Amino acid sequence: MKSAVSSSLFNSKILLNPNHLFRFFSLKSSFLPKLSPRSITNHTVKLPSSSTSARRSISSSMASSFNPEQARVPSALPLPAPPLTKFNIGLCQLSVSADKKRNISHAKKAIEEAASKGAKLVLLPEIWNSPYSNDSFPVYAEDIDAGGDASPSTAMLSEVSKRLKITIIGGSIPERVGDRLYNTCCVFGTDGELKAKHRKIHLFDIDIPGKITFMESKTLTAGETPTIVDTDVGRIGIGICYDIRFQELAMIYAARGAHLLCYPGAFNTTTGPLHWELLQRARATDNQVHEPG
Amino acid sequence: MKSAVSSSLFNSKILLNPNHLFRFFSLKSSFLPKLSPRSITNHTVKLPSSSTSARRSISSSMASSFNPEQARVPSALPLPAPPLTKFNIGLCQLSVSADKKRNISHAKKAIEEAASKGAKLVLLPEIWNSPYSNDSFPVYAEDIDAGGDASPSTAMLSEVSKRLKITIIGGSIPERVGDRLYNTCCVFGTDGELKAKHRKIHLFDIDIPGKITFMESKTLTAGETPTIVDTDVGRIGIGICYDIRFQELAMIYAARGAHLLCYPGAFNTTTGPLHWELLQRARATDNQVHEPG
Repeated sequence: MKSAVSSSLFNSKILLNPNHLFRFFSLKSSFLPKLSPRSITNHTVKLPSSSTSARRSISSSMASSFNPEQARVPSALPLPAPPLTKFNIGLCQLSVSADKKRNISHAKKAIEEAASKGAKLVLLPEIWNSPYSNDSFPVYAEDIDAGGDASPSTAMLSEVSKRLKITIIGGSIPERVGDRLYNTCCVFGTDGELKAKHRKIHLFDIDIPGKITFMESKTLTAGETPTIVDTDVGRIGIGICYDIRFQELAMIYAARGAHLLCYPGAFNTTTGPLHWELLQRARATDNQVHEPG
Repeated sequence: MKSAVSSSLFNSKILLNPNHLFRFFSLKSSFLPKLSPRSITNHTVKLPSSSTSARRSISSSMASSFNPEQARVPSALPLPAPPLTKFNIGLCQLSVSADKKRNISHAKKAIEEAASKGAKLVLLPEIWNSPYSNDSFPVYAEDIDAGGDASPSTAMLSEVSKRLKITIIGGSIPERVGDRLYNTCCVFGTDGELKAKHRKIHLFDIDIPGKITFMESKTLTAGETPTIVDTDVGRIGIGICYDIRFQELAMIYAARGAHLLCYPGAFNTTTGPLHWELLQRARATDNQVHEPG
């Protein structure tokens, strides 16, 4: 299924949806899929053949005596050409129940459906195996590093990614590490290996009386590290939901040659409409992680 | 005249207007005035009584073990409380002719009209005393530092700001310094003194065949310095048009305690609709230079 992407840019339904949302931005600032509350959407994306050429063209068109944008050159790492210049991305937007087994099989089916429609990269939303509550996080948390039975959610992602030969950005699940809990995104390669783990850096604590109160920091610990990962579909910078609020993270990823930035999210409907689309488009435009034009 | 500000957020007429535009953002991300091609709009703005309190509330609500946003603390300079917490801003949007004397008297009348409606801060658009062309810039350029007869445009701004006891952000005019030309914004205080000059840092060179080709760098030299100025209405960071495209400038201003960011502009209609409103809202939201909520 391909939807008319640009027409959905100002679709408030996207921003107002209270369910678990996954939003993605990167290649074009207009690349914002129109998602129904439970949907799988495949999109064809086209990457520039060389990400450096896009940046160079920006510099070379500025023929003045002082080029502040060249302060970004040289980059922190050599900028890679993407391994694929055109591929499909599947975005899975999932309803979540209190039944973890059901949540896992539900997500598995969605991934399989996306892959069957040609997706080479499939993405899940934030906290897709558990209800979004501080009471639930400790109960549904898994020991990702232990793997196997200790982490049925990521075991499923590993199995599916290997079997279907796809890259999966596994939204996020509550991760248990000793006595700490993190909100963690796992990235699996086409070989089924865990290629990266991103722990949500910016925990979302909000208290707007009469509207929304939620303190992630009551149960969760914040991650401390940006996460950028080379996959079969390109170099990807990862953030989770409120991580998108902080421009510095996206700037780091751009400087490190990311082709794509992905922020699985479960934005609320109070601050979400003011922030989610705006910040996606701003990160993409500011950092030119998309193909210009 | 006060217009319904929030309703104009997605008004494409704002972004598509080919005339010299001034756009302003700061105190609220929704603070985007609806301007007709030649209009003076006064807006009442409310500054937080202490800009530090807004920032602190962001930090204090993040009670996790790691607070990346605190990397912004301490600030480069102490953050000042604004001298006024509520005042009117007048935005003058001017048509420009080939007759410089007419352009100056036209701008003068607009400023006087804005002040008569209660504006304490009045702003002009980019290049308001000259047609926007590389042929015109050398002809209309003035020696601002010499002043007097060598710079009738800024002499007018000085006289008006002192007489009306208002702060003026004088859009921009072509400035001649020896054999160089700059695109320069002059800020005048209520005493008629020139408080700051901002020279456009990011010259706009564009070549989209069949749509728009313009090379500012053919005649202009780029400025090299961010400009932040303390005025009777608060600390203001200045950029000109394409300067808004670069997030680093706004981040510098926020770190230095700006209450307000002002970017006089004359955006084109090819890239303008994709960038102008998006970047204004992003800079305001990312850097929290407005009153939250």
